[in-house]
Amino acid sequence: MSTNPGQQSLFAAADDPTMTPSKPAKNQAAPDDSRAKSAAPSPKDEGGATAESMAKRQREISVSEFFTKNRHLLGFDSPRKALLTAVKEAVDNSLDACEEARILPDLRVAIRRVGQSDKQFTMVVEDNGPGIVKAQVPNVFGRLLYGSKFHRLRQSRGQQGIGISAAGMYGQLTTGAPVRVRSKPGKKAAAMAFEIRIDTARNRPESTERQIEWDKDHGTEVAIDLEGEYRRGQKSVEEFLKLCAVANPHVHLVYTDPDGNVTEYQRATQELPKEVEEIKPHPHGVELGILMKMIADSENRTVSAFLQQDFSRVGPSVAKEICAGAGINPDSNPRRLDTQGVQKLKAAIDATKIMAPPLSCIAPIGEELILTGLRKEVEADFYVATSRKPVVYRGRPFAVEVGIAYGKPGDTLQMTDAGKIVEVAKKKPENQEALMGAADEPVRLIRFANRVPLVFQQSACAITKAVIDTNWKNYGMQQPRGALPIGPMVVFVHIASVWVPFTSESKEAIASYDEIRDELRLALMECGRKLGSYVRKGKKLANEFKKRNYIETYIPHLVVALQDILKLDEKDVQKARDNLTTVLEKSRKL
Amino acid sequence: MSTNPGQQSLFAAADDPTMTPSKPAKNQAAPDDSRAKSAAPSPKDEGGATAESMAKRQREISVSEFFTKNRHLLGFDSPRKALLTAVKEAVDNSLDACEEARILPDLRVAIRRVGQSDKQFTMVVEDNGPGIVKAQVPNVFGRLLYGSKFHRLRQSRGQQGIGISAAGMYGQLTTGAPVRVRSKPGKKAAAMAFEIRIDTARNRPESTERQIEWDKDHGTEVAIDLEGEYRRGQKSVEEFLKLCAVANPHVHLVYTDPDGNVTEYQRATQELPKEVEEIKPHPHGVELGILMKMIADSENRTVSAFLQQDFSRVGPSVAKEICAGAGINPDSNPRRLDTQGVQKLKAAIDATKIMAPPLSCIAPIGEELILTGLRKEVEADFYVATSRKPVVYRGRPFAVEVGIAYGKPGDTLQMTDAGKIVEVAKKKPENQEALMGAADEPVRLIRFANRVPLVFQQSACAITKAVIDTNWKNYGMQQPRGALPIGPMVVFVHIASVWVPFTSESKEAIASYDEIRDELRLALMECGRKLGSYVRKGKKLANEFKKRNYIETYIPHLVVALQDILKLDEKDVQKARDNLTTVLEKSRKL
Repeated sequence: MSTNPGQQSLFAAADDPTMTPSKPAKNQAAPDDSRAKSAAPSPKDEGGATAESMAKRQREISVSEFFTKNRHLLGFDSPRKALLTAVKEAVDNSLDACEEARILPDLRVAIRRVGQSDKQFTMVVEDNGPGIVKAQVPNVFGRLLYGSKFHRLRQSRGQQGIGISAAGMYGQLTTGAPVRVRSKPGKKAAAMAFEIRIDTARNRPESTERQIEWDKDHGTEVAIDLEGEYRRGQKSVEEFLKLCAVANPHVHLVYTDPDGNVTEYQRATQELPKEVEEIKPHPHGVELGILMKMIADSENRTVSAFLQQDFSRVGPSVAKEICAGAGINPDSNPRRLDTQGVQKLKAAIDATKIMAPPLSCIAPIGEELILTGLRKEVEADFYVATSRKPVVYRGRPFAVEVGIAYGKPGDTLQMTDAGKIVEVAKKKPENQEALMGAADEPVRLIRFANRVPLVFQQSACAITKAVIDTNWKNYGMQQPRGALPIGPMVVFVHIASVWVPFTSESKEAIASYDEIRDELRLALMECGRKLGSYVRKGKKLANEFKKRNYIETYIPHLVVALQDILKLDEKDVQKARDNLTTVLEKSRKL
Repeated sequence: MSTNPGQQSLFAAADDPTMTPSKPAKNQAAPDDSRAKSAAPSPKDEGGATAESMAKRQREISVSEFFTKNRHLLGFDSPRKALLTAVKEAVDNSLDACEEARILPDLRVAIRRVGQSDKQFTMVVEDNGPGIVKAQVPNVFGRLLYGSKFHRLRQSRGQQGIGISAAGMYGQLTTGAPVRVRSKPGKKAAAMAFEIRIDTARNRPESTERQIEWDKDHGTEVAIDLEGEYRRGQKSVEEFLKLCAVANPHVHLVYTDPDGNVTEYQRATQELPKEVEEIKPHPHGVELGILMKMIADSENRTVSAFLQQDFSRVGPSVAKEICAGAGINPDSNPRRLDTQGVQKLKAAIDATKIMAPPLSCIAPIGEELILTGLRKEVEADFYVATSRKPVVYRGRPFAVEVGIAYGKPGDTLQMTDAGKIVEVAKKKPENQEALMGAADEPVRLIRFANRVPLVFQQSACAITKAVIDTNWKNYGMQQPRGALPIGPMVVFVHIASVWVPFTSESKEAIASYDEIRDELRLALMECGRKLGSYVRKGKKLANEFKKRNYIETYIPHLVVALQDILKLDEKDVQKARDNLTTVLEKSRKL
């Protein structure tokens, strides 16, 4: 890579003498018959570029250069979004690292103004994770497409090895400042501090490092200066962290905003998510080209061993069946297969029944913890959650989970244990506005993929489409055509998978695969049915309360009339009132 | 790159002995207090991964591996779309090459079934372009992020150096077959044939080549076998090529479909698009990080020379003004500037008035050729086009053009030169269904960027948003709220720019920048106003025709009555009929 043409100036081609600049045509629409007619002229004759002159300009584009120019693909299209995206990438990495090392995450997130600027900020994320060994720090933070998660089939927040380096690159681009990292990879290891710049032409880090004292057993801290815009409310850092706490009740997180206000999210569980296991690829998800590559890379020297060792769910008898189907000797060397041979092998794999892949590679949140998370951050009257059994798309396991929080705490009717309806005073919800809307607004949809909140591109997401396609009128909700239902409700949807198919590198929306949409639909319907009976009960409750109010209003008048007609004394009046109330309440089944 | 860890097996990490697989927890929601409480344990104690074990898994991800897994980002998400995307990428490259070499493009596109399969196809695109020199062919077709267009500020169809290699990679992945290329880079040069495979782990080509006879002066042909689905109609290869012909009236193209049917698109002009010139970056579009990089890469040894040589529109006096504003000696070496110095320089650049960048870098189609293209492929009653003057966003020139074709040829009313309305028999439109819908359907929107039709993701595109945001009721059209207008109309929108901000690598939709949306709005309004007077005239025409029909229907009855009352003879009857008709037509201003 060191003699890479990418090291040339970004604009080196600008004054290439082989190009003859033409005068701009004033009126290009006017036909000019002096130009070539139908027979194509030789390129040289026309004074245009030739294959030789064009070849001089052809060169590699580094992935950093590509994403510098296309930074909107990574979520850095506006200063406001950039600030949130940077925090998100750093938090994702910290949580992944803590969980992989089986450490209960303890995070500190801070956003500070650079000087008095309201356009430049420093974003700091510190964790108590396992740290990063010295030699890898510059690569992890200063190189795009570098990491440990891309090639592993198991659930993680990060999957591309782009995010945090891209945040650093954006910071460098907009403020000129390097990424600062502190890392301590264990109790006895030395803590190191790094300053890292990205050479975008080569996609390689340039860094300096020094040993420091850090009063910590282990962990990593990253600080990035970047152009940003700080605003609270929807799509803010605050909202993102709050949603993080909903989907990650095992996380303890302290957040300091640019004005020095501190928000603390306490753990709701001391339990780490289930440890996920890496799985081998499942034969049914493999494509011809991948199969050829796996054979070339395999250390196994027989087709049978290759099938059993390099895939999940292939034992001796399945391997035998596949080989028989392909007409291939199980003891032959897989590398000897030509393209036709591999095609036969793939056809035989597809025709063979093979057990579904192991599900230990994903860790759904689970119904109980979804409810815990929702209860912690959303005050509501009714909660329900569904965690579907994992299923498989293209050989990749995934699971869909849905939670619903319904009913504004403003509603004050409650049924007592004795079955009486009472009006209760409720405490005013705190910090509630962000997550639940008003009764006449669309429900609030909160989307998650591998426990990461998805904040942007809601309308482009398969989750949103599935919620809109669900018929919420069946569950007692209002719903305009082709839109989210209306009402005081938060809908939580989580997809956990070894590889979430996002619609762009910025991981903001999930692509609409049929298998995923089906599971979403089923999970939403499961929760919807339970919601429906609650909503209907609530409506009945409200109706009955109204009726009882009538009784209470009219009984005194009735009694006065009876007293007049029947000439009752005070004792009889009281008795009549009690009897009437009892009779009417019984008839109303109150 | 040759000792790159990417060469390891794609799945090498699967059986790393340092990982201790855990049993899947049956009920992960149940709190387990034996786990760590609040104090984070040392990672080693927990049996989880450590910084060391994690470091072993960290490695580079090649851009080919990345896009193999994320192929939907490049437009290869379904077999049907993949077939069209492959054709599109090859056609884009052919047209760019022909125009750069100033050759009138002559293209042959064919799709053939592989054997009897209806799942595998061979896509062939042949051009009469300048050819590609031998040494570059493998890189151009077998390496992602490689090309000549990325670093040049001038309009071209391709801009990323990804497309055609990605098509080849998809083909290799789904059929195992290599990309086949023939190229002849000039009359006297030898023609060569290549077979190219992509080593995805290294993003490098592996190719074989041999000299061949090719009865052609110069040109390139690429053939790719790929899994696809062939269907006609909307979003088909046929439609794409037809739209190509609309926006590229200088192209001659012969297309052969899998059933052997041949469609030929003739040139409507012998004029190549204006030759575009490469420009240097404009100072007002440059960011701090880019400025620092430009300084580091510059050969100029004074700040003044750097500003004048490396940017467009900076002469001696502007350079002086910038230096004065920054408090920097114009003769100092720019490389001596520290971050604060470069920040000052950037602030001074932003504060200095600088002439807009040269517009010679883009080549809009022009009103006349838009009309020619529309007339050639869309049969309609009324055509109008607008080509806006180029403007600038973030230092990058762009131009917006709009064309409208209105009125079903099924409408048979026409006004003669003498001002009479006549009913005419129109010939049945041929091959029309694809481009114009029925009168009660939404208008057909056809979108183009740098003369390339955009076929997918219509609703996510800034162009669509601008058409929806235009109030078409002002122009006599029906328009449901938040939707495209209704009517027999084709709306053509083209954006020409040195860098089109697409929402994804597959280049299917344009991102919503304010400057672009404003220009779109103005261009649509310009065309809309002209459309409005036509639509209103048409409505008047239809009304008058109805009235005249009344006259024609009732005059004979009137005349019979007059004949009875006034006892007219046949001659007077004829005269009365003529006079009545004249009087009534006059009063109706027919």
